[in-house]
Amino acid sequence: MTKIQIKVIVPITDSKYNDAFKEEIKAVLAPDADFDLVNVTQGTDSIESRYQEFLNTGSIIELAKQAQDEKFDAIYVDCFGEPGVGIARELVDIPVVGGFTPAVLTANAVAQRYSIVTMLPDVIPMLEELERDLGITNNIVSNLYVDIPVQDLTHRRKLIERLFEQSLQAIEQGAQAIVLGCTGMINVAADVHKLLADEKKPAPVIAPTKAAITMLQSLVRMGISQSRLTYYASPDEPRGVWSSVLRITAGTGWR
Amino acid sequence: MTKIQIKVIVPITDSKYNDAFKEEIKAVLAPDADFDLVNVTQGTDSIESRYQEFLNTGSIIELAKQAQDEKFDAIYVDCFGEPGVGIARELVDIPVVGGFTPAVLTANAVAQRYSIVTMLPDVIPMLEELERDLGITNNIVSNLYVDIPVQDLTHRRKLIERLFEQSLQAIEQGAQAIVLGCTGMINVAADVHKLLADEKKPAPVIAPTKAAITMLQSLVRMGISQSRLTYYASPDEPRGVWSSVLRITAGTGWR
Amino acid sequence: MTKIQIKVIVPITDSKYNDAFKEEIKAVLAPDADFDLVNVTQGTDSIESRYQEFLNTGSIIELAKQAQDEKFDAIYVDCFGEPGVGIARELVDIPVVGGFTPAVLTANAVAQRYSIVTMLPDVIPMLEELERDLGITNNIVSNLYVDIPVQDLTHRRKLIERLFEQSLQAIEQGAQAIVLGCTGMINVAADVHKLLADEKKPAPVIAPTKAAITMLQSLVRMGISQSRLTYYASPDEPRGVWSSVLRITAGTGWR
Amino acid sequence: MTKIQIKVIVPITDSKYNDAFKEEIKAVLAPDADFDLVNVTQGTDSIESRYQEFLNTGSIIELAKQAQDEKFDAIYVDCFGEPGVGIARELVDIPVVGGFTPAVLTANAVAQRYSIVTMLPDVIPMLEELERDLGITNNIVSNLYVDIPVQDLTHRRKLIERLFEQSLQAIEQGAQAIVLGCTGMINVAADVHKLLADEKKPAPVIAPTKAAITMLQSLVRMGISQSRLTYYASPDEPRGVWSSVLRITAGTGWR
Amino acid sequence: MTKIQIKVIVPITDSKYNDAFKEEIKAVLAPDADFDLVNVTQGTDSIESRYQEFLNTGSIIELAKQAQDEKFDAIYVDCFGEPGVGIARELVDIPVVGGFTPAVLTANAVAQRYSIVTMLPDVIPMLEELERDLGITNNIVSNLYVDIPVQDLTHRRKLIERLFEQSLQAIEQGAQAIVLGCTGMINVAADVHKLLADEKKPAPVIAPTKAAITMLQSLVRMGISQSRLTYYASPDEPRGVWSSVLRITAGTGWR
Amino acid sequence: MTKIQIKVIVPITDSKYNDAFKEEIKAVLAPDADFDLVNVTQGTDSIESRYQEFLNTGSIIELAKQAQDEKFDAIYVDCFGEPGVGIARELVDIPVVGGFTPAVLTANAVAQRYSIVTMLPDVIPMLEELERDLGITNNIVSNLYVDIPVQDLTHRRKLIERLFEQSLQAIEQGAQAIVLGCTGMINVAADVHKLLADEKKPAPVIAPTKAAITMLQSLVRMGISQSRLTYYASPDEPRGVWSSVLRITAGTGWR
Repeated sequence: MTKIQIKVIVPITDSKYNDAFKEEIKAVLAPDADFDLVNVTQGTDSIESRYQEFLNTGSIIELAKQAQDEKFDAIYVDCFGEPGVGIARELVDIPVVGGFTPAVLTANAVAQRYSIVTMLPDVIPMLEELERDLGITNNIVSNLYVDIPVQDLTHRRKLIERLFEQSLQAIEQGAQAIVLGCTGMINVAADVHKLLADEKKPAPVIAPTKAAITMLQSLVRMGISQSRLTYYASPDEPRGVWSSVLRITAGTGWR
Repeated sequence: MTKIQIKVIVPITDSKYNDAFKEEIKAVLAPDADFDLVNVTQGTDSIESRYQEFLNTGSIIELAKQAQDEKFDAIYVDCFGEPGVGIARELVDIPVVGGFTPAVLTANAVAQRYSIVTMLPDVIPMLEELERDLGITNNIVSNLYVDIPVQDLTHRRKLIERLFEQSLQAIEQGAQAIVLGCTGMINVAADVHKLLADEKKPAPVIAPTKAAITMLQSLVRMGISQSRLTYYASPDEPRGVWSSVLRITAGTGWR
Repeated sequence: MTKIQIKVIVPITDSKYNDAFKEEIKAVLAPDADFDLVNVTQGTDSIESRYQEFLNTGSIIELAKQAQDEKFDAIYVDCFGEPGVGIARELVDIPVVGGFTPAVLTANAVAQRYSIVTMLPDVIPMLEELERDLGITNNIVSNLYVDIPVQDLTHRRKLIERLFEQSLQAIEQGAQAIVLGCTGMINVAADVHKLLADEKKPAPVIAPTKAAITMLQSLVRMGISQSRLTYYASPDEPRGVWSSVLRITAGTGWR
Repeated sequence: MTKIQIKVIVPITDSKYNDAFKEEIKAVLAPDADFDLVNVTQGTDSIESRYQEFLNTGSIIELAKQAQDEKFDAIYVDCFGEPGVGIARELVDIPVVGGFTPAVLTANAVAQRYSIVTMLPDVIPMLEELERDLGITNNIVSNLYVDIPVQDLTHRRKLIERLFEQSLQAIEQGAQAIVLGCTGMINVAADVHKLLADEKKPAPVIAPTKAAITMLQSLVRMGISQSRLTYYASPDEPRGVWSSVLRITAGTGWR
Repeated sequence: MTKIQIKVIVPITDSKYNDAFKEEIKAVLAPDADFDLVNVTQGTDSIESRYQEFLNTGSIIELAKQAQDEKFDAIYVDCFGEPGVGIARELVDIPVVGGFTPAVLTANAVAQRYSIVTMLPDVIPMLEELERDLGITNNIVSNLYVDIPVQDLTHRRKLIERLFEQSLQAIEQGAQAIVLGCTGMINVAADVHKLLADEKKPAPVIAPTKAAITMLQSLVRMGISQSRLTYYASPDEPRGVWSSVLRITAGTGWR
Repeated sequence: MTKIQIKVIVPITDSKYNDAFKEEIKAVLAPDADFDLVNVTQGTDSIESRYQEFLNTGSIIELAKQAQDEKFDAIYVDCFGEPGVGIARELVDIPVVGGFTPAVLTANAVAQRYSIVTMLPDVIPMLEELERDLGITNNIVSNLYVDIPVQDLTHRRKLIERLFEQSLQAIEQGAQAIVLGCTGMINVAADVHKLLADEKKPAPVIAPTKAAITMLQSLVRMGISQSRLTYYASPDEPRGVWSSVLRITAGTGWR
């Protein structure tokens, strides 16, 4: 049996979450699906701004193209902010998703209105753009944040507590489901849901990586990929630019 | 290995599409997933109006409750119009979907804007309601129809031709993906996509049953079901009403 | 003088509000209009879920068809949630309304933005669907609730007090008019308005039954009914299903 | 029996439509309702621009205040564009409507989506503003026009023919009801509807004056008027300005 | 060098703000731009209602037509509520703006979402209409007010303090920029911004007059004016009405 | 007199339009404003995809940071698609705009609804994203294209002709103003407007570079820049990544 092969691109240089990511992904893989996880080889160790997204995009799309060359069936860019996803969708034919779209569409499938709880206020305007681009703004009750820097994500108990508080506030505002707004919020969705259920507010809590990995399996099984009428193929030859970058980066830096 | 068990409720009494439905479903099942398909035992042989939806809803929700009792993991009501789905979501805890929501959300994952092509103009206002309820109206370019009665769905060649024509028109209007707006449009998505690609308009064509079956597998793997804050449990005892209906129907009619 | 004859269908089996309903209706009848009020003969004694709506719909639409046969001019389904209204609009040619649409459109005629105050949180997602279907979501400031079970509606003083509190909150949020979100909130609109006016917040308070009964008189005078392009006539023969149900119900149960 | 007294302000100086207006109004009056119709005493003989609206507004609001002083119960400004209505709503406590709002809300009560067919393209941007203000833009399919100057409204046959053509086009675009976008389109709604029904496109056709007169009766019966939180009372004393104008106008008229 | 000549129409009779207006305007004039500021000659000394807007509109549009006759290049109606602007746009060919549109579009250029802080609650529904007309409602977080009568605008310290408080609240609600919602809020924007920046909430604070004067210079440099497809020229001859009004007002009142 | 200094970054390597850009910019400069125009030093010679945007972004933001260091007052990225603008807004404090936002907001200031006419269909989904991000989607009538590759922009006559045709179609669809959707459409706006006016459809035609250069002058005069609550400053140190890229590029490639 040939398996569905998913390339997981962790778009930060820091690999300390990799094991946790792998656990999370394995939990939602079908028996006929497998994955390979790699970090970007160039970029920052976290992404909290448009600029940091840019810095890491070069390596993301390079890895995406490699994944297609190596016959992977689908690509997951393991970041809620979906850095490089639109570009990669132009460059490869296999389906590519980030964390935002699958998580939000899952929430949309099980609830009318929902909130996103992310790490810091700084990224909320970037989420707002993603929400507007996806055309589901009217279903968003609020964008909240736990006010914990991404580096502190390892304080799991504190994270769960803050997510619970913010989720309760979201529900008070009208949310019927909660989307975890950072793929680094690993292994907490069930706990937050449990706490909410204990308060008689049993909102589904959506973990973005699980939503993404299952959506990719679905797309592969359906034979559906990003529309070429939304993501037109980029003109064939970038006229020598990118290859020269590649040459450089091969030597020292970009990668 | 315990398999993911999906109950497929065909909400019309006519079983002539059953074999084709089964083929379509099998094509997107993971090795650890299985399904059982049943027709409603009471109702009409097609659904083209709100009234016909109502007539078939009693049996749909009865089958949904049975499915939960029999430890199924998920329920698919095999109709684009999603008859009885909202009610069933109140009555059972396992995830329930119809054809509309998964198909449209799949389109939303791969394109900005898309159109639905259904059978007849009469159901378009019902689709409009579903679109409004889902909160994605701004992404809908148009609701078109092939103008073929559901009973004529078996003229496969004619159906493909008409879908191709309407899809081209939708793309002309701005659509970047096409949603097949009837679960009876079986085994045609790939052909329509091929024709569009030949015209250099390679819009993804979404088959609703495939979208639904894959979404249910995703929800089960994630442990996510419809929100109880959107679909509150109905008050426990319907005060003798439903049981009396059951008593009657057990004897003669409703079922 | 032939009078405008309005059939009022109380879609619950409980008749304890009937006298109050009648008083409310009489207050807004023109001299050339009359009504006949009946309870459903089958169903639950209150409606707080989609499932309960379904359980009562069979009798509602049966009564609606009878009303047309008996030459009534219009039909009011006396429930804010409008159970069975969409179906009845397919089945009869005379105008049919529930409580939601007339009340909300009345608010829309006298204010830019308004809130709905209903009984319990459980029905708010159902209201949200109605709001989306009507296409006026942007004018809704909030959906609030008094947190009183429908059965306790008879505690009039408490109801008025809670409505006043919630209305004040709605006004604080930006509402300029208040829609009472349950047709069982009888004979309280004027009192709530008075309390608001005393606080210098004289928002109009709309009682849904009054809005519905006056709208029906308007539609009849104009000769306007639901559009057959929104509510297509259901295919002529439901193929023996419904008539068999009728046969049963004639004997024992459904009615 | 004290009757509901409606003041009808024809906001143009031309009285040639008055008899027709009166016929139309009588057709929808309840036995306990009556009306008095007057033309503005100052202004233009038709309104096709924002400037013409302004020129006629002084007399409109003067007549509105007089109507309240004379104990009328409600005011109808007999023009689809609703000139002076917002201002009059600030100045009097009795309900005031123009033609647009009642007609559009009536369409909204009987169909999901509808079009307006007016006289000339020049007023469409003014309609667009009214639509946006009412918050129902998403339900508007299109604003079309018969391309007949208001002065030619008397060519009834031609008007019906052009309305029929444009209505068919609107229905083709998705409209399910038609709103006549000029109160001068008198006594044609039924004919247009008949023609549409003959084409199997039986969209309701809404005549704005009938919608307005019936809505006013409804508001009076309900005891509801424009919200003082939307239309705040203008500061008490316009500081001598208006009274001096009054002094002038008392002598000669507004002019 | 011929300068860009801007006519500034202060649409209230009170000239006590004129010097401050002039200072504010000078601060944003290019070397090749100049202005002439006049008060309306007829009307009220402040505008806080639709009625007051009307009372002052006659003089506004008269001054606008004079400005065009005198070869001015652009017109600014110095009021956030934009009284008479739509009418003046019909009557003259040179660009006309009020305070609202330029300020809000400036906010839209530098932030996703923003709030307006005005003087009193009474004008918020009028702002809501302007927001809806401009089609940017979804970007508005809230309309807040400092609760100071326009006449008290001269208490500059109190105004700054109240603006700061309300701006902080707006930012808490999600606003990323603040629009001062009254052109009488002169010479306070920088101070409010400074206070916000000190709180680490450095939202831009937009002064409407500065936004308007700079936008007019931009429009003149680009050779762009209001669209004649939005603001059709009013029919040529208002049939003797307006000229006769002029005759009267020349003698006694209107002007 | 210190002049307002605007840095114009032409985000493509091709300099053949530079003289034309300069002419266009000079036409709208105030006497106290000046500009310096540079091409990116690394990237592609045109931008028609997300990927090409990315390839040119590194140099764009480098030039933006230099511009701030060199005490420029404002930055214009001379491309309708606004590549790198969001990132640059994070990195510098002086105002940065691209072509899209100023042009669309100018259209919004002079018309209710408008269309964009761009070069090729491939970029329309990218425009759709910009429109959604700006929150003005409801004012967009359509996105049309002249179907001319950017390289052929020099065929001025053909371009004008095609723009005229598409503008007429846009107006037919409801547009009241036309936005030229490519900054390479130089020196054609007046001609297209003239042709439209000759057809009695005098829609304003907005040239994006003129809109951008005038908006920047306005922002500088007002002392307003992008909101730091929308464009948070990126974390201070990109942790060695970017500086290493700079080192490389200094030697050979990226710059």
